[in-house]
Amino acid sequence: MFAGIEAGGTKFVCCLADDNMKIVERTTIATKTPDYTMSKVFDFFKGKDIEALGVAIFGPIDIDRESDSYGKILNTPKLAWANYNIYKALKNELNVPINIDTDVNGAALCEYYEGHGKGRKSVLYITIGTGIGAGFVMDGQVRNGITHPEMGHILVQSREEDFEGVCPIHKNCLEGMACGESVFARCGVRGDKLGADHEVWDYIGDYVGQALMTYTLILAPDIILIGGGVSRQEQLFEKFKLNFKKYMNGYLSHKRYTQEVDDYIKYPKNGQDAGLIGALYLAKKALDYEK
Amino acid sequence: MFAGIEAGGTKFVCCLADDNMKIVERTTIATKTPDYTMSKVFDFFKGKDIEALGVAIFGPIDIDRESDSYGKILNTPKLAWANYNIYKALKNELNVPINIDTDVNGAALCEYYEGHGKGRKSVLYITIGTGIGAGFVMDGQVRNGITHPEMGHILVQSREEDFEGVCPIHKNCLEGMACGESVFARCGVRGDKLGADHEVWDYIGDYVGQALMTYTLILAPDIILIGGGVSRQEQLFEKFKLNFKKYMNGYLSHKRYTQEVDDYIKYPKNGQDAGLIGALYLAKKALDYEK
Repeated sequence: MFAGIEAGGTKFVCCLADDNMKIVERTTIATKTPDYTMSKVFDFFKGKDIEALGVAIFGPIDIDRESDSYGKILNTPKLAWANYNIYKALKNELNVPINIDTDVNGAALCEYYEGHGKGRKSVLYITIGTGIGAGFVMDGQVRNGITHPEMGHILVQSREEDFEGVCPIHKNCLEGMACGESVFARCGVRGDKLGADHEVWDYIGDYVGQALMTYTLILAPDIILIGGGVSRQEQLFEKFKLNFKKYMNGYLSHKRYTQEVDDYIKYPKNGQDAGLIGALYLAKKALDYEK
Repeated sequence: MFAGIEAGGTKFVCCLADDNMKIVERTTIATKTPDYTMSKVFDFFKGKDIEALGVAIFGPIDIDRESDSYGKILNTPKLAWANYNIYKALKNELNVPINIDTDVNGAALCEYYEGHGKGRKSVLYITIGTGIGAGFVMDGQVRNGITHPEMGHILVQSREEDFEGVCPIHKNCLEGMACGESVFARCGVRGDKLGADHEVWDYIGDYVGQALMTYTLILAPDIILIGGGVSRQEQLFEKFKLNFKKYMNGYLSHKRYTQEVDDYIKYPKNGQDAGLIGALYLAKKALDYEK
C-alpha cells in the first residue's frame, strides 16, 4: 500500500491507500512538538504493509536529494519544527522509500492526476490564505529547482500609499499585500466579516492579477488553480481574472491566455484532501528515487 | 553534420558542425524579407550532408510541436516576418529533423553544455539589450511551457515618479523600465555615452535586482547568466547583485542565493556565438522529436 502524510501547521493527516490511490485508512494528529506528533505518526504506520511513503509538508524544507540535510525543515515560524529532519525520522522508523515535498506541490500533483489538470501539460496550484504559496507540476513531475519555489514572495506594484505590507521579510511582496493577514492588518477584522464590495478586494484582486501575469510569463502553465481561504470569495476570484487580462493586455496570443481565461484560471477540483492525495502520488514517485 | 541557424533581427548566421559541435563552415546573411533572406539560407545548406537542423530565433514564435502552426513567427515588430512559418519553409527545402526555439533558449542551452552552466542543474540566461528576454534550461531540457517564456515583461516596482516606461504593451514592465531603449527615453542619449555614476544605472540595477529575485523564487535556478549590451557595464552588473541580495533579504538560505551570489549571478562564458552553438544543440535534440 502507499502511505501519505499531509503535514500542516495545525494537523498532520496520515493515510494508507491501495494501488488505485483509494484511501482505505486515515487518522488526524494535532501538530504539537515533533516528539508528540511524530510518535503518533509512527504508531499509525507501524506494522502496516507500506510500499512507499509520500509527505506533503509546510515549507521551507530542504528538498534537494543530493543534500545531507534532505528533509530538514528550515527557518520556520513553527519554532519547535525548525531544523527537524522529518525524512531521517521517518526513514529510521519505517525504512521504506520516502519522497518529501511541499504541501502546495502535493496539491498541484493531485490536481494534475485527479483534478482539473488531468490531460493538461502542466498545473500551477496557488493557495491564498494565511500565507501565499504555489506548486508547479509539468509532464507529471514536480518542478522544483535547487529549492522548492517560494512564489508567494514575488514583488508586486503597490496601489496603496498608506499600507506597506505585512511580510516580515519583504514587506510589500505578494504575500505581504494579499494574504489573509494583510486584510486583517488593513481592516482590523477578518476578510469574511467584510462586504463583497469592500475596497480591499480591489487591491488584492490587483496584486494577484499581477502575480498571475508574472507566473504566466515565466512558466507558461497550461492551467492555474487557486485555492485557499481568501480566494473562496467569488467576487474576488473574478477580479483575479479581470486583472490578469488587464495586465497581460493581449501580449501572448495563445488561446489559453486570451479567449479561454475562464478555463485557464479556476478553483481546484479537489478540496481539503488535495494535499493528502498529492502525498500518495509523491509516495508512488518515491519508488523512482529509492528502491 | 549538424546545422544551426541563429536568426536575429539584423542578421541570420548559419553554420555546419561536426558531431563534436565544432563549427566547420559558416555564413552571415542580412535579415531583410523572408524571400530574400531564406533563399540565401537554402543556398547555403543545400546539398550538404545534414543530420538535423536547429534554429534559435527571435520571438514570439509558436514552439508548440502539437500545434498546426509550429514554427510560425507571431506578432512581431519585424513586420515582413509576422506570420511567416520558418519551420515549414525549412522542412520543405531541406527535409531533415528540425527543432525551433528562441534565441535566448539557444543561448541558455549553449551555457548549459559549454559555458558556466556545465555541471549545474539548471541555467537561466537573460539578455538585457534593446529588449529583455530570458531562456531556461534544466536537466538538459529547454523548459518552455505551452509557450516560450517572456520573462522580460514581468512587472516591477517603479522607483521613478517621472518615468512611465517604454514598453508599448505594458509600459512599466521590466523591459519597459530597464531595456536600452528606456535609457535613451530618459536621457536622450545611448547608455554608452553616460557616465558610470549616472543615476539611471541605480534605477536599472534596482529593477533588474527585483526581477532576479522573482526568477529565483519561481524557478530556483542553479545559475543566472546575464548578457546583452546594457549589462556589459560592470558597475551596473554589481548593482544587479547588490539589489538581488537586498530584496531577497536572506529569505532563502540556500548557499547559491547567499554566500555564493558572485558565482550565482555572472556574465555568460560564451560570447557572440552562444545562440549559434545553442542552435546546434537544438539540432541534436531534433533527433528525439523527428526521425
